[in-house]
Amino acid sequence: MASLKTRLQHSYTPAALRSYLAEFLSTFFFVFAAVGSAMASRKMAPEAAMICPSSLIASAIATAFSLSVATYVAVNISGGHVNPAVTFGMAVGGHITIPMAIFYWISQMLGSVIACALLKVFTVSPSVPVHGFIPSEMTGFGASVLEGVMTFALVYTVYAAGDPRRGAFGTIGPLVIGLIAGANVLASGPFTGGSMNPAHSFGAAFVGGTFKNQAAYWIGPLLGAAMASVVYDNLVFPSESPEDSVRGVTDRIVV
Amino acid sequence: MASLKTRLQHSYTPAALRSYLAEFLSTFFFVFAAVGSAMASRKMAPEAAMICPSSLIASAIATAFSLSVATYVAVNISGGHVNPAVTFGMAVGGHITIPMAIFYWISQMLGSVIACALLKVFTVSPSVPVHGFIPSEMTGFGASVLEGVMTFALVYTVYAAGDPRRGAFGTIGPLVIGLIAGANVLASGPFTGGSMNPAHSFGAAFVGGTFKNQAAYWIGPLLGAAMASVVYDNLVFPSESPEDSVRGVTDRIVV
Amino acid sequence: MASLKTRLQHSYTPAALRSYLAEFLSTFFFVFAAVGSAMASRKMAPEAAMICPSSLIASAIATAFSLSVATYVAVNISGGHVNPAVTFGMAVGGHITIPMAIFYWISQMLGSVIACALLKVFTVSPSVPVHGFIPSEMTGFGASVLEGVMTFALVYTVYAAGDPRRGAFGTIGPLVIGLIAGANVLASGPFTGGSMNPAHSFGAAFVGGTFKNQAAYWIGPLLGAAMASVVYDNLVFPSESPEDSVRGVTDRIVV
Amino acid sequence: MASLKTRLQHSYTPAALRSYLAEFLSTFFFVFAAVGSAMASRKMAPEAAMICPSSLIASAIATAFSLSVATYVAVNISGGHVNPAVTFGMAVGGHITIPMAIFYWISQMLGSVIACALLKVFTVSPSVPVHGFIPSEMTGFGASVLEGVMTFALVYTVYAAGDPRRGAFGTIGPLVIGLIAGANVLASGPFTGGSMNPAHSFGAAFVGGTFKNQAAYWIGPLLGAAMASVVYDNLVFPSESPEDSVRGVTDRIVV
Repeated sequence: MASLKTRLQHSYTPAALRSYLAEFLSTFFFVFAAVGSAMASRKMAPEAAMICPSSLIASAIATAFSLSVATYVAVNISGGHVNPAVTFGMAVGGHITIPMAIFYWISQMLGSVIACALLKVFTVSPSVPVHGFIPSEMTGFGASVLEGVMTFALVYTVYAAGDPRRGAFGTIGPLVIGLIAGANVLASGPFTGGSMNPAHSFGAAFVGGTFKNQAAYWIGPLLGAAMASVVYDNLVFPSESPEDSVRGVTDRIVV
Repeated sequence: MASLKTRLQHSYTPAALRSYLAEFLSTFFFVFAAVGSAMASRKMAPEAAMICPSSLIASAIATAFSLSVATYVAVNISGGHVNPAVTFGMAVGGHITIPMAIFYWISQMLGSVIACALLKVFTVSPSVPVHGFIPSEMTGFGASVLEGVMTFALVYTVYAAGDPRRGAFGTIGPLVIGLIAGANVLASGPFTGGSMNPAHSFGAAFVGGTFKNQAAYWIGPLLGAAMASVVYDNLVFPSESPEDSVRGVTDRIVV
Repeated sequence: MASLKTRLQHSYTPAALRSYLAEFLSTFFFVFAAVGSAMASRKMAPEAAMICPSSLIASAIATAFSLSVATYVAVNISGGHVNPAVTFGMAVGGHITIPMAIFYWISQMLGSVIACALLKVFTVSPSVPVHGFIPSEMTGFGASVLEGVMTFALVYTVYAAGDPRRGAFGTIGPLVIGLIAGANVLASGPFTGGSMNPAHSFGAAFVGGTFKNQAAYWIGPLLGAAMASVVYDNLVFPSESPEDSVRGVTDRIVV
Repeated sequence: MASLKTRLQHSYTPAALRSYLAEFLSTFFFVFAAVGSAMASRKMAPEAAMICPSSLIASAIATAFSLSVATYVAVNISGGHVNPAVTFGMAVGGHITIPMAIFYWISQMLGSVIACALLKVFTVSPSVPVHGFIPSEMTGFGASVLEGVMTFALVYTVYAAGDPRRGAFGTIGPLVIGLIAGANVLASGPFTGGSMNPAHSFGAAFVGGTFKNQAAYWIGPLLGAAMASVVYDNLVFPSESPEDSVRGVTDRIVV
């Protein structure tokens, strides 16, 4: 266990700074496609976008494809979190230090805000599609539970994809991470919007100017991520010994 | 050949218990996305969901993506069946013992029921999309034949994907298992609903409150799975010798 | 170079018979999904299926997903042709003997006919979606050229995917073969139907009862496949020496 | 550093000529599917194609699938650029010589023009879908920025996918290159058309007969590609030493 000072120093190494840049860029790529696809559906069919399964499919495919890529391009550098909930789950499991996790969060939220702002400005759109407009019969609590369950599935998949004990299956890990996110968007679109990613929700809310129900998009996903971390590491696929730690994020940094 | 007592003891080892948990979680992830996507389409376009190819595409993509992931995250632990028909096919081929198969079934059905219940409660939906509403010109027998043929294709793919003689192709095995399920949903949606998975059909029926035509979603798939097992192991890709057994599921459990 | 008698004997070995069975099953799986998805779109939206891009997307995804799987499950056994045009291209390149190619063709067409017949009977559909209804401003010659160009791309991809000199890229070969077929269906759906596969067109025509423009779906694809074989083996990626033959199909048969 | 004469001679070797042919064919395959899918949507629903998310999904899937394949089949031969912006980014990073880059551009643009011409003639279509019709509230500058940002993401992904330091992840590189392009088409369709590829825009404009806003589809992508090259090679994943150069394209040519 490193001292606080050591860990802080650790979070300023060139390798760490490259991790933050990688998280910033990957989150930017992901949010650009996810939010952009929702804006594009609204642009094409303003009144139909909310009631047409086609706009849901467009969002789901954009989410799946871009999250696969965002994870892929960052996986050897930062671990490819692209999501504060994933970083939180990794911190719960002891795979990233708290100081580094904080810089990951900042990088991810910055990437999301800039992607949303850039889309809004250059498409000259009056608004940005935000999460939080849940059906009237649902509650914020229900939305948070659904988001939490879906984030559990996402973070569980991230753990499985990054587990070196799985051998060659790791090669397609970035793809399956995108696929579970896309599948969950299809399952939850008209109910919660299908975020599973507080950086996505925060960036859209910040640029869109409304933080309605924002708490639901943080509490559920963070709790779901923490539970996935505990279940995977301790129940489903426990390490034999403490040294057999699965995926220290910093160990992955290849220079 | 182990004695019954040995096999029963075998089904209570920590590795076996982890397998049941893995099957429970993976079936939950899969059914959540498959049933959730059908609920989402209905929520967006209540009257159009049954007649719009977009809702069919949404179901097919959710099925393909989530089954790929569900198989992937469980493959090193339980073999990644996620489906009582697959487990049945493996039992027919002698790749899993009967006691373990029974616990797999229980885990899968429990995962499906809980996924459907959770969706119904937290989306505050009046109903759950169930299989069984087949076109009036069709018979339950016809639906069972179609489901059986599609499950044959699915289980045949599972056999091929898990066959160690295929070398590096095994790496993308979880992906192709999802793809054949998605393709078959597109082919059968308005006819049978495209289940190929008795746990999916059971969970939706149990929570939805109607077991109409439920038998068709068990008989066809179980027979199709058994046939796929026999055809793959004996005709298409026979083992040279009894010791050359392809995929003892329990051999796969990595601890 | 083997004598005719040797080659004929070669085409009756157990390995060869397993190849024919593998081609039969894979073509069945592929045509079931490709034709079934077109029937499903028509069932859901009878009048809209011809003018709605959603039905085109459903066909394209079903084609891509099922062809990837059909290729995957047969690749170690028969080479995973699943298509008389691919078999023809392989024969032109000398990678399969003429007697074996003939049995491949028979297996493929049988698989296609049975898939179409089974769909028609058990869905109780009045008709089967056939190729051949091209727009009135187009000619059969134009349809044949388009089908030929697309089959060129498909067979060129098959050659690339099966080339052992590409190393680890071969692992995703079956996926990209499905992807190019799906992309070309999207490009050609309302013009030619996007076949690229004479067995698909033949099976649908045989069960559907109309061979209108059938020649266009044989001449173009067979010529395109032959050209792809010549271009790949001689111009783009020539072998250094005759012994360096890339992919003798029979060499791939693993027992 | 080779002399100009050496570099010119280098661009006429048999390996170089095969690279140009590979780029020509791959760009042809890609543009055929990308432009063809837009023509197909217009053919099916002439008045709806511009306002229906389904037509956007069709374009995005065709782009993703065909670019994955186009990259895959050329990757061992030419590096699989399929895009003048990618070639430009590689030239900026010093991974391809200027003379070779020029021949790559010519091959790519020729492939695109011929694909568009062939589609127009044989589908007997009155026009070809071109980029450049951006919404009235947007400016050419805004379109160029969006195209530049998306091309940055694409070229950054190309760099990551081709980096040998990533080990086994390289195997799925061609897939993720297609996925980021498809995701970006979904994000930008109704705003810029989602090109990220000057050869695509040029071919469509040349055959379609209008070069409206063409500059936006060159300036943004070329600048974005150059920035991605600089950021990847120098900030995110710098080489330790000059000899550790990542991906000399010519080094990849396998004969």
